[in-house]
Amino acid sequence: MSDGSRTAPRIAIDAMGGDEGLAVMLAGVARARRAHEGVSFLLVGDEAAIRAGLARHPNLERHSEIVHAPDVIAGDEKPSQAIRRARSTSMGIAIDCVKQGRAGAAVSSGTTGALMAMAKLSLRTMPGIDRPALAAMLPTLGDNDVVMLDLGANTECDARNLVQFAVMGAAYARTTLDLASPRVALLNIGSEDQKGTEEIREAAQVLRDAKHLPMTFTGFVEGDRLSRGHHDVIVTDGFSGNIALKTAEGTARFVADLLRRAFSSSARSKIGFLISRPATELLRDHLDPNNHNGAVFLGLNGLVLKSHGGATEIGVATAIGNAVKMVRADLARRIAEDLGNFEAKAAA
Amino acid sequence: MSDGSRTAPRIAIDAMGGDEGLAVMLAGVARARRAHEGVSFLLVGDEAAIRAGLARHPNLERHSEIVHAPDVIAGDEKPSQAIRRARSTSMGIAIDCVKQGRAGAAVSSGTTGALMAMAKLSLRTMPGIDRPALAAMLPTLGDNDVVMLDLGANTECDARNLVQFAVMGAAYARTTLDLASPRVALLNIGSEDQKGTEEIREAAQVLRDAKHLPMTFTGFVEGDRLSRGHHDVIVTDGFSGNIALKTAEGTARFVADLLRRAFSSSARSKIGFLISRPATELLRDHLDPNNHNGAVFLGLNGLVLKSHGGATEIGVATAIGNAVKMVRADLARRIAEDLGNFEAKAAA
Repeated sequence: MSDGSRTAPRIAIDAMGGDEGLAVMLAGVARARRAHEGVSFLLVGDEAAIRAGLARHPNLERHSEIVHAPDVIAGDEKPSQAIRRARSTSMGIAIDCVKQGRAGAAVSSGTTGALMAMAKLSLRTMPGIDRPALAAMLPTLGDNDVVMLDLGANTECDARNLVQFAVMGAAYARTTLDLASPRVALLNIGSEDQKGTEEIREAAQVLRDAKHLPMTFTGFVEGDRLSRGHHDVIVTDGFSGNIALKTAEGTARFVADLLRRAFSSSARSKIGFLISRPATELLRDHLDPNNHNGAVFLGLNGLVLKSHGGATEIGVATAIGNAVKMVRADLARRIAEDLGNFEAKAAA
Repeated sequence: MSDGSRTAPRIAIDAMGGDEGLAVMLAGVARARRAHEGVSFLLVGDEAAIRAGLARHPNLERHSEIVHAPDVIAGDEKPSQAIRRARSTSMGIAIDCVKQGRAGAAVSSGTTGALMAMAKLSLRTMPGIDRPALAAMLPTLGDNDVVMLDLGANTECDARNLVQFAVMGAAYARTTLDLASPRVALLNIGSEDQKGTEEIREAAQVLRDAKHLPMTFTGFVEGDRLSRGHHDVIVTDGFSGNIALKTAEGTARFVADLLRRAFSSSARSKIGFLISRPATELLRDHLDPNNHNGAVFLGLNGLVLKSHGGATEIGVATAIGNAVKMVRADLARRIAEDLGNFEAKAAA
């Protein structure tokens, strides 16, 4: 076993969460292990079931430790109910492994609400942060993905929340996208200064004045320009962020469905489809949410990642790969530093 | 000239608004005239310029009357500035033609903010309505398009606003989609009852109880299911609606761009593309915003439609076609009736 350090990260896995079951989770972990040299795992859940599942993954078994959890959070359980059973569930124990320093990050495919409630209860938010924000990478036409937050953790946000999201999102982009001064924009319904809610306009004013931050504030961005590659971080409240993210996912699927219909509309187009299949598979690959899986809660004293409930083996491996990258980049510490610097300057 | 009645509608056109210029507007009007038997037009704007432009459209000239307007609203003008010059601008005069009963509807490609401010000032809102809502039809995988509102007229909405949008949107779907009891959903960040803001939950409660309304309330819908064809009307505040609409547009364009890249990535895929071109053109056609152009302000005592600023000749013709359909369906009266019935029942 590794020592859970930055160079040899250890990741805690909620092996029981998610809609696809333990077998898919373990296959995803095994895939991630093959892709990331020197990483080890804490597999949290029903010990007997995990041990049986590991029979198919002998190499993973050598790099894993099982942490027994007698209970699991159900998909339809309310966060308020879930946290009462935190200490006995695979989700809660995986998070506690991060708190105790046994793991550098926890990954769960359980429900977002329960995961956030438990992570907040166990790890606590960083000084000055009220609630964590959920951040993910989305594909763009540009050179790198774009970080978007909040994606649903905070239904209503004030200007201070939005500014904190900007600072945390920029730290995320600096560490994982390796950018010196990420371009940060606020999602809005127009690009002119007077557009949007009071909260957004106030946040824009603060960010415009905060020239000392390691980011480039680029003003407002509208929904139709999220994936153009002109921004590295897009900041929004959790309601709009969730709507935008899901609308983007739904529209991509909608277009793919229409394309399939169009291609099967005639013998000619079917032939064309067969010939150009490598091209359309490239596209499918680029858009597959499994290749962008793994949203992270920013603003906590520790790293907790949310994997999509319906993630495939590849999706689970992608989320774990993101966790490994974040641990190696020491993301939580970098964010705490940036927040501290920002607050110190603001106070001065 | 026709009499501006329901059977022979007359449409007032703001000929000077929009980014594409007078020539595109006139070409769009000419195209709409060819498609809609018995329709006539009031072309509002610079008389000399319109007369010169009509030289290329002799048939349109025979079905049009020019209404001179000395002034035009600039694209970057604030609504508060614009309304001071309402009476001398092509936009303001086109709206006044509706007020005076000279036209059944007005169509403008000018800015949304100015158009709403002027329309509200001139036509006034229906009894009980604070602000009009902007509604449009979006493509789906189902049998009919879906009505979505508000798309940006009201940045913040309370439960009462959302309920009114539902009543107005349902009336719109009944008249233009010819549905007896449209399926109406509220856009939210989850489908469970406790999800979202207080305003949304309260609106849902009112709509659940309003069994006498000519609609079927289907609960909450998430952003990824907007285009599945499971709903006929989607209700949201103007901020989220604008974000969702623009994200959908941007994502569709993003996928199309990726597809183009994929198809040109190899000689083989280029050949496949050429063979299946009819199929991909079918797709492009289905997604082209010009084929869905023409959003309408609901809740005003008269019909005003917003055409996209960058609409092509086809886009302008689509918006005018929608206006014709609404005039023929007597949409404004139907909405007033439904709102009246709803308020009467609520009071009883």
